[in-house]
Amino acid sequence: MSWLSISPDSHFSLANLPFGIISTAADETRRPAVAIGDYALDLRAFALAGGFFASPEIQKHVAVFSAESLNAFAALGRPLHRLVRQHLQSVLSARTADPHILRDNEQLRRTALLERARVVNHLPLAVGDYTDFYAGKNHAYNVGVLFRGPANALQPNYTHLPVAYHGRASSVVVSGTPVRRPWGQILRDPKAEPKVPVLAPCEKLDLELELGMFVCRENQLGHPVPIAQADDYVFGYVLMNDWSARDIQAWEYVPLGPFTAKNMGTSISPWVVLADALDGSKAAGIPNQETLLPYLREETKENCLDIQLQVDLTTANGDTTTISKTNSKNLLWSWPQMIAHHTITGCNLRPGDLLGSGTITGETAGTEGSLLEQTGGGKDPIKLQGGEERRFLHDGDTLTIRGWAGQQGALIGFGEVTGTIQPALPLF
Amino acid sequence: MSWLSISPDSHFSLANLPFGIISTAADETRRPAVAIGDYALDLRAFALAGGFFASPEIQKHVAVFSAESLNAFAALGRPLHRLVRQHLQSVLSARTADPHILRDNEQLRRTALLERARVVNHLPLAVGDYTDFYAGKNHAYNVGVLFRGPANALQPNYTHLPVAYHGRASSVVVSGTPVRRPWGQILRDPKAEPKVPVLAPCEKLDLELELGMFVCRENQLGHPVPIAQADDYVFGYVLMNDWSARDIQAWEYVPLGPFTAKNMGTSISPWVVLADALDGSKAAGIPNQETLLPYLREETKENCLDIQLQVDLTTANGDTTTISKTNSKNLLWSWPQMIAHHTITGCNLRPGDLLGSGTITGETAGTEGSLLEQTGGGKDPIKLQGGEERRFLHDGDTLTIRGWAGQQGALIGFGEVTGTIQPALPLF
Repeated sequence: MSWLSISPDSHFSLANLPFGIISTAADETRRPAVAIGDYALDLRAFALAGGFFASPEIQKHVAVFSAESLNAFAALGRPLHRLVRQHLQSVLSARTADPHILRDNEQLRRTALLERARVVNHLPLAVGDYTDFYAGKNHAYNVGVLFRGPANALQPNYTHLPVAYHGRASSVVVSGTPVRRPWGQILRDPKAEPKVPVLAPCEKLDLELELGMFVCRENQLGHPVPIAQADDYVFGYVLMNDWSARDIQAWEYVPLGPFTAKNMGTSISPWVVLADALDGSKAAGIPNQETLLPYLREETKENCLDIQLQVDLTTANGDTTTISKTNSKNLLWSWPQMIAHHTITGCNLRPGDLLGSGTITGETAGTEGSLLEQTGGGKDPIKLQGGEERRFLHDGDTLTIRGWAGQQGALIGFGEVTGTIQPALPLF
Repeated sequence: MSWLSISPDSHFSLANLPFGIISTAADETRRPAVAIGDYALDLRAFALAGGFFASPEIQKHVAVFSAESLNAFAALGRPLHRLVRQHLQSVLSARTADPHILRDNEQLRRTALLERARVVNHLPLAVGDYTDFYAGKNHAYNVGVLFRGPANALQPNYTHLPVAYHGRASSVVVSGTPVRRPWGQILRDPKAEPKVPVLAPCEKLDLELELGMFVCRENQLGHPVPIAQADDYVFGYVLMNDWSARDIQAWEYVPLGPFTAKNMGTSISPWVVLADALDGSKAAGIPNQETLLPYLREETKENCLDIQLQVDLTTANGDTTTISKTNSKNLLWSWPQMIAHHTITGCNLRPGDLLGSGTITGETAGTEGSLLEQTGGGKDPIKLQGGEERRFLHDGDTLTIRGWAGQQGALIGFGEVTGTIQPALPLF
């Protein structure tokens, strides 16, 4: 319980305290904050006022709270993140032993405790490299069927290694950033010969419901991360919508994978839920029957996150339909397995690197992480509130993904990641 | 002609003046420099001593010469790069109108004109995103035959768009950095069922001869770069060796492209040859018979670079063999076409982004950009000086790529990109 009044439905309970980067109309400098109930605690203001004086270990590193991204804070490592989060939980607790720091310090409350509705969120970390995994087995199977047929839906490597590809870091944007419908090369009739593409605005614009994970530690180039140490590399998690142009993707992706179909925007939620906050929200993922190579073997089977996920589509008319409800347990591979595989050939991770889970889809109708799957490749439109139908996204559609773990009153929530489709620009 | 004595064989003639980042034993701070003959002109020292006073336009931006990477200089744009290069050419010219700036300024010559053999080179730019194209048509065809057979060697999209994939930026390293033989998943017998990979040190470690291009300008997310403006985004070029683990690649790359087989290291030459320096070294590339979509059409056919390329392999015994000689004209797509396609869906480029050409291979034996091609997938070993053979790279092998345009006495050269294979580490 906090001395702040927090709704039991709030994603940002005292048990959570996710970190982000904010600015305000009064001060446009970007700076770190934590979300608590309807507030954002400005960590720069808090630190400058001596909020961390009681902890010399934190105070030594207090410059990271004046940085314009969380990269420097992340790079301090998980023990430090734990200390900071515990200190802030103690300061914000109803049973705080230090009420003078914030609760009874009216001046600091006024300058540091900001209404969350009035702050602007920015990208929480400067993204180094962005890697998108493909660990959502149900999604990989469903899409494989559509692109290659059931016989080749899952490739032979799929259960032996976490398939992934390098994504585009520059176009990772924070929730709320509009998404422009892209132009691209499209092969309208895949059966016609010769195959001649057209240049047109994407006609199959889709979402991809994913979790994102930010890295906080660097391994040396040439030195793989042992799976038992992989947890130390996890800073925290965000929700992710990896917007996808399905028609552009289908034509371009052979043989080297998706490129322009995915590099026009990837949206993430602004508040990074720290790894520690989700330690109590682990569960078994999708079972893998393969005998794994030792570098991918884990002591525990419960190394998947148990996060409820929900996708809402709001039309330009304002009608909102929940189009999917699923859970992040629907992954074949855990984050430590992804890290171990990512680095097995010696690739160096760096603080600020972003890893995507791949699209998360459950086993039943209504749990799909993409419209591609939900509409059978666009053949069976879904019905929305207000009577409209969707095969793929229309201009003016707003997609909102929400996610949370834990129980009412102590929710560990992500808030949301949202984005609205803007019509294609006239080309040149 | 310079008042400095420069060998006619030097890659770094007065006509070139490539930019890099150096440090010295006496001062380990990284700082910008240009290469000229056997010297590196320390631009921080030159600028601090007033070397740019004569040009108020340059002097305004002189802080970029105290930065630890060339990103800030690159971001100033091509007109400024041109001014700086012309000013330095004028200062270094035998006919300089300003001998007092450097030629007759003994103190500045002593502090700023460093023996190149005694400076340490670093990555010239902090790499934002790294994208690897696949524009070497002969290479794409040869590799396609080996991986998929002649019927599917080139995919139907190949002549309609410059195929590319997102690469790994964190593992781009400067020439001279050793390359550790990676461990990875390998399917030893692709025909056996079930398919069960082993974890082993790579047995098919290969080079890929490429050109790299650094971007100097940002386009707004959602706004494609028109091909007529694409040249403005080119900062300059480097030689690149995109080390590749062929056995790991063959198992992992379907369906999303290469991942761990390529993320363990990509080496680049340290001196960035500015776009302007190569304006006189253009030629037609491989002709493309397709009617291209308008956004890929260029006014000129001569938009490929005409750079001689040579690959040397030096064994641990010290025997050196030139294993390939080719030319960067062997590309189906020009750099402006790559930029136009990269951004067609709205992807934002940023200064410091690195684009690779794809492996450059000619039409005849001895012009291959990879051992995979030269040995027919490892079937026909090549013979080296000293009697050894190679199917793929051995521990202790040093690969050196050199490249140059222009004529003796006015060479526009890249110097070299080199790297030595270290044995695989014991795993954990």
